[in-house]
Amino acid sequence: MKVQTFDQFIKSDRYQVIMQRSRFSYDSVLSVVQDILDNVKRDGDQALRKYTKDFDNIDISNFRVSDKEIKIAYELVNADFLKALEVASRNIRGVAEQQLLQMKHTTVMPRSGITVWQEWKPIEKVGLYVPGGNAVYPSSVLMNAIPAKVADCKQIVMTTPPQNDGSISPYVLVAADLVGVKEIYKIGGAQAIAALIYGTESMPKVYKIFGPGNTYVVAAKQLAAANGEVAIDSPAGPSEVLVLADETANPKYVAADLVCDAEHGNDSAAVLVTTSSVLAEQVAEELERIIPRFTTQQRIKESLEKFGAIIVAKNMKKALEFANEYAAEHILISTKDASNIAEQVTNAGSVFIGEYACKSAGDYATGANHVLPTGGAAKMFSSLSIYDFMKAVEYQQVTVKGLTEIRQSIEIFAEVEQLPAHKYSCSVRFENN
Amino acid sequence: MKVQTFDQFIKSDRYQVIMQRSRFSYDSVLSVVQDILDNVKRDGDQALRKYTKDFDNIDISNFRVSDKEIKIAYELVNADFLKALEVASRNIRGVAEQQLLQMKHTTVMPRSGITVWQEWKPIEKVGLYVPGGNAVYPSSVLMNAIPAKVADCKQIVMTTPPQNDGSISPYVLVAADLVGVKEIYKIGGAQAIAALIYGTESMPKVYKIFGPGNTYVVAAKQLAAANGEVAIDSPAGPSEVLVLADETANPKYVAADLVCDAEHGNDSAAVLVTTSSVLAEQVAEELERIIPRFTTQQRIKESLEKFGAIIVAKNMKKALEFANEYAAEHILISTKDASNIAEQVTNAGSVFIGEYACKSAGDYATGANHVLPTGGAAKMFSSLSIYDFMKAVEYQQVTVKGLTEIRQSIEIFAEVEQLPAHKYSCSVRFENN
Repeated sequence: MKVQTFDQFIKSDRYQVIMQRSRFSYDSVLSVVQDILDNVKRDGDQALRKYTKDFDNIDISNFRVSDKEIKIAYELVNADFLKALEVASRNIRGVAEQQLLQMKHTTVMPRSGITVWQEWKPIEKVGLYVPGGNAVYPSSVLMNAIPAKVADCKQIVMTTPPQNDGSISPYVLVAADLVGVKEIYKIGGAQAIAALIYGTESMPKVYKIFGPGNTYVVAAKQLAAANGEVAIDSPAGPSEVLVLADETANPKYVAADLVCDAEHGNDSAAVLVTTSSVLAEQVAEELERIIPRFTTQQRIKESLEKFGAIIVAKNMKKALEFANEYAAEHILISTKDASNIAEQVTNAGSVFIGEYACKSAGDYATGANHVLPTGGAAKMFSSLSIYDFMKAVEYQQVTVKGLTEIRQSIEIFAEVEQLPAHKYSCSVRFENN
Repeated sequence: MKVQTFDQFIKSDRYQVIMQRSRFSYDSVLSVVQDILDNVKRDGDQALRKYTKDFDNIDISNFRVSDKEIKIAYELVNADFLKALEVASRNIRGVAEQQLLQMKHTTVMPRSGITVWQEWKPIEKVGLYVPGGNAVYPSSVLMNAIPAKVADCKQIVMTTPPQNDGSISPYVLVAADLVGVKEIYKIGGAQAIAALIYGTESMPKVYKIFGPGNTYVVAAKQLAAANGEVAIDSPAGPSEVLVLADETANPKYVAADLVCDAEHGNDSAAVLVTTSSVLAEQVAEELERIIPRFTTQQRIKESLEKFGAIIVAKNMKKALEFANEYAAEHILISTKDASNIAEQVTNAGSVFIGEYACKSAGDYATGANHVLPTGGAAKMFSSLSIYDFMKAVEYQQVTVKGLTEIRQSIEIFAEVEQLPAHKYSCSVRFENN
C-alpha cells in the first residue's frame, strides 16, 4: 500500500471513498423482500417451506433442530473447540454480568414526596439470526446469545439457514447449546426474519431481532423496523479497523492487525494512521511480505485496495481528530501512553489498548463484545451489550405532599398547552371528595 | 362507556382493535417524502425556502431564530410560566443527573491481564424536532433538551415549523432557551428532518434526531434511519394510558386520568382494567358526568369510542397479565399494595404508583420523562433518558499475560472460522521479533 501524508490524503479522491467505505444498499431487493414478508405473514409454515425449497434447495418438514441433532453435533466437534468455547464464554459472561450489576436502579427524589427511577427489564422474546452459507461463525452465536441469557430474556429463538444437506454447522449448534439457547430453527434469509416478526405454526414471534445477514436479511429487518413491527439491533456493515500508532509500535503487529481485519471480506476497511513515517513504510513493506501467506489473500488484497490506507499525520492531535471523524468499528491504539490516547477517542465501537490487545483477541476471547457499529455509526450507536436485550421501564411515585409541590407547575403547563383535562387530572385530587 | 367483563372483552371484536390501537401508516407519503429528502440534499437552503413557502406559506430568508426573537419571547410569557418551567426543569434535570452518575463505568477483569469496560460518551450532534401547528408543547422541549444537555451533547440543534406570521411560539422559545438550547431553526416537516440529516448552507447536520411529528416527519425519520443515514429515537404514536385499579381506587381520579389521556387526540387510547365491578360502573358514570365540561370533549369522546375500554378482570393476576400484554405507554396503579403490583409490570413506558401520581404530573413535572414507547413498543423500547443521547464505547486492555491465557482459544476459533490472519494477529505477538 502507498504511504500518504495526511495533507495528500484529504486532498485526494480517496478521502471520500475511505470515509464513506462500503455501505449496504438494498433498494434493489426491497420489493422481493416485501413479498416474502407478506407471504410468510399470510401462509406461515407453508411459505417457509416454499422459500427454503426455492432458495436453499431443500425440502424441510420440521424446522426445529432436534435434541438428536444437537447430540450428533457434539460428536462432530473436538475437545479443543469445546475448550475454546468455554474460555471465551466465561469471559463474555463475566463482562455481561458486570454490566447487569451496574444497571441496578437507584431512585431519585427530585423533591420531597416525588420518587422517580428507571428499571431495566429483559425483553421477553428475542430472535437471533445466524448467517450460514460458506461462513461458520460460532463466535457470533456467543456474542449475541450470552448477553441475552444474562439479561434473562425468557425466550431466545435462534434461526440459521440449513446447509446443502439440511443440517446446521455443528460448531454453531454446539456454541448455541453450550450457552443455553434451547430453540433453534433451520430457516435462513428474509423468510427467517419474517417468521420471527409474525410467527408461524412452528415458529414463535419475537419482539426484537439481532444478528447480521445478507442483503435480503438486512432489508427484511429494516423494513419491519421502519413499520414498527419489531425492534432490531444497530445496523452492521463490513468489518473495519483503524490502527493509531506512533514510532513505538511494532510494524509486524500493526500489519498483522490490518490483514486480520481485511480478510473478513472484500469490503472490509483497514486504515493505519501514524505519526511516524518510518513506521508507515515498515508496515507497508511488512504487508507485502505477509499477505501472500494467507489462504484469504484475495479478499485481503481487494479490501486493502478499495478501502485501505496508510496515512502519516503531523501529530497525535491530528491523528485523533481523524480517528474521531472516521469513527471506526475497531480502533487499536499502539502508542506511548496508550490509555491516555484511548480516553480521547470519542467515536468508536471498541478501543483496543496496548500492543497485546490484538484485533482477534477482541473478536473472540477477551469477553468484549464483537458486535459493533460500522461505517461511522459509532458516532451514534453503541457496542452490543446487555442493554440491547433489555428496556428501561420508568417508575414514578408521588405523595399528596409531592403533588402539592408541583401542582402549580402542572396546571400552568396544561393551560399553555390547552389541555384542560390535564389540569383537571391534577386539581381533582385537591377537591373535597 | 360500556363496562365489560374480561371474558366478554377478549371474545369481542373490540379485543383486536384495542390491542392494535392506532398506528402510523405512512406508505401514502413515502414517495413525496423521498423527493423532499433528495431535493434538500441536493439544493440545500434553496429547497428549504421553497418547501417553507409551499407548505407553511411563508417566505423565510433567515432560518435561524435570532437573539432578538428570544428576547421578545421572554416579554410575551408571564412569570407564572417561567416558574412552572423552572420547577419542571429542576426535577427533570435531577433525574437525568442521577442517571448520569449511574452510568459511570466499572471495569471487569474477566481474567488476569484482561480488562474490559464500556464508557458512555455523548452523541456529539443531536437534532430535536418540535412540532408546531395548533399545538404548542413547551413540555416536550424540556423532555428532550434537558437529557441532551446533561449528557453533554456538544451541539443541540432544534427545529420547529414557523407559525403563520413567521414566528415561533414564545413558550417553545423560552423553554428551549431556558434549558440551554442555543441553536433554533424555523423549519418544519420532512424538509426540517432532511436538513438535520444532510446539513445545508445554514443548518448543520446531526447524528441522531429526536422528537415527534406529523406523518411526513415520521416518514422522513424512518426512511433515513432505514438507509443508515442517521439514528432516530424510538417510534412514537398516539398517547395511551392503562389504569389498573381495585376497589380502593377513587373513581373520580380514575375517570380524570382517562380523560386526561383521551384529550391528547382522537387516536389516543384510555383503558381501565379493574378487579371491582362497582368501581367500573362508578368510573363509567363519572366519565359521562365530566366529559362535557372540557373544551377538548370532542377529541375525548372520539378516542374513548375508538380505543377506550372498561374491563372487569376476575383477579389482579389476570389484570396484570392483560396489562403486560397491552404494554401501555402509561400505566397507573391505583390499588392496595401498589408498589408490589408495580414491580410485576414487565412491559410499560412509565408506571405511576399511588393515587397522587396523576397522569399530568408525569407529563409535566415529576422529573420523569414523558417521551415513552407507544402502541405496544414498550415490550422492546425504553422510556427516554440520557442513555438515548449517549453511546457506549467498548474498551479492552490486554497484557502479554492476558493474551497468553486466551491464545489457544483465539487460534482455535480462527481455525474453525477459516480466518488464518486472525490466528496470525495473535500468534505474531509470540514470535521472536
